[in-house]
Amino acid sequence: MQKNPVDFIPLLHKLADASGDVIRPYFRKVGFENKEDETPVTVADKGAEEAIRKMLKAERPDDGIFGEEFGSSNMDAEWSWVIDPIDGTKAFIRGMPVFATLIALTHNKKFVMGVIDQPVLKERWIGGNGHPTTFNGERVTTRNCTDVSKAVLNATAPGMFSGKNEAFGKKFKPLEDAAKYSLWGGDAYAFGLVASGFIDIQIDTSLKLYDYAALVPVIEGAGGVVTDWRGGTLDFDSVETQHGCVLATGNQTLHKQALALLK
Amino acid sequence: MQKNPVDFIPLLHKLADASGDVIRPYFRKVGFENKEDETPVTVADKGAEEAIRKMLKAERPDDGIFGEEFGSSNMDAEWSWVIDPIDGTKAFIRGMPVFATLIALTHNKKFVMGVIDQPVLKERWIGGNGHPTTFNGERVTTRNCTDVSKAVLNATAPGMFSGKNEAFGKKFKPLEDAAKYSLWGGDAYAFGLVASGFIDIQIDTSLKLYDYAALVPVIEGAGGVVTDWRGGTLDFDSVETQHGCVLATGNQTLHKQALALLK
Repeated sequence: MQKNPVDFIPLLHKLADASGDVIRPYFRKVGFENKEDETPVTVADKGAEEAIRKMLKAERPDDGIFGEEFGSSNMDAEWSWVIDPIDGTKAFIRGMPVFATLIALTHNKKFVMGVIDQPVLKERWIGGNGHPTTFNGERVTTRNCTDVSKAVLNATAPGMFSGKNEAFGKKFKPLEDAAKYSLWGGDAYAFGLVASGFIDIQIDTSLKLYDYAALVPVIEGAGGVVTDWRGGTLDFDSVETQHGCVLATGNQTLHKQALALLK
Repeated sequence: MQKNPVDFIPLLHKLADASGDVIRPYFRKVGFENKEDETPVTVADKGAEEAIRKMLKAERPDDGIFGEEFGSSNMDAEWSWVIDPIDGTKAFIRGMPVFATLIALTHNKKFVMGVIDQPVLKERWIGGNGHPTTFNGERVTTRNCTDVSKAVLNATAPGMFSGKNEAFGKKFKPLEDAAKYSLWGGDAYAFGLVASGFIDIQIDTSLKLYDYAALVPVIEGAGGVVTDWRGGTLDFDSVETQHGCVLATGNQTLHKQALALLK
């Protein structure tokens, strides 16, 4: 029988549960070892992706998988899974519970379901095709702010505009100046806060496929809009063509204003 | 009978409990109204300080009080209380549970006890004179990183170096470049994470008395060092003389390295 994206919701929950069980014991539990390959965050990152892959291999052996830690396989399959076990590793490192596990389900390369999970706080956004976004089971919607001068703008970190991204910093400035509040930090967790209506405009650059695939269904399922900085749909190729530049807003009106300022 | 700072620990807990009870219902519960004086954070901020003041008036009527929202009274008293009901209002606004309530006890104008409380996550650092710092009742200590090139550096926000503080940004750059990780965000909550050993160096500018008074006993009680950017003791006058520039580190060796780089 033909499956629908919503049929995978129980599995999406199971995957996020399994991942969280791996991650939680490492958070704030081990000293920071000063070796890139032995930090608690790296161990947790790999272990979480392994747990997700193991479960998918058992339950969905023919599907494609693309994960941050262990690469991709069979991505031409009808259904594929895109995984970032710990988005926001810097938050994890300094003991701030605002990192997130990202799991996206794709159908013929369209992002159809997404999960943003914070395993320490046990906070979970899930949404997409046929399933309006929920936060811990409660329906959430973006905020109806349609005037950029009243908007809460958030961007991940000033470092995202350094080096080869300096030109994006210049494009960002007019938007930053126009917003009511301009805040920093949060990575994927902040995209969840857009879905919940606390942030009106969220900006990021250099996102990889595994960083943004899960965000799209969550934001759209809450009534928001998410595109690249030119207004283009985010897809498997957006990393190359648009340098992973992502703009998420609460609604279409605000999105148009933000795009005009990012020109 | 002469009181000791530790005699006030039960009252410090009661004050933080009362404040948290006021704040929690406003977090993520009300829409952001776009009016500075009617936002949930402002209502919570004032309500929390009122709750603390009411309790102090009943239990310590002769003590001094200085709060962010309602000013100061009787600050020449032997014992005084310095309060910031919500430090990190921008985190509160966007629904991130990393703001903090700060309560300091001063004895003859020395900071002798401090509380950093996160009421949503129910996380509380308390420490000071005669009471080594605890986090939710468990003893915590700073990390023993004595080499700036291996240090996790955190600073509140890039905006703190704009305008009249541009010169501080220039001083900060060599330290930022020398550290292993340079992260942003967190305000007072990040100072708590220094006490817990997850952040090695925490930097801030333009802090007011109510922003830093509680941080000093918490950091020192965990084995850390906290001064202004010249290495001077933080006291009631540091706001004016040192522009509220604060440097907290895990230990004396690292502190000296950081001070040398901030010159």
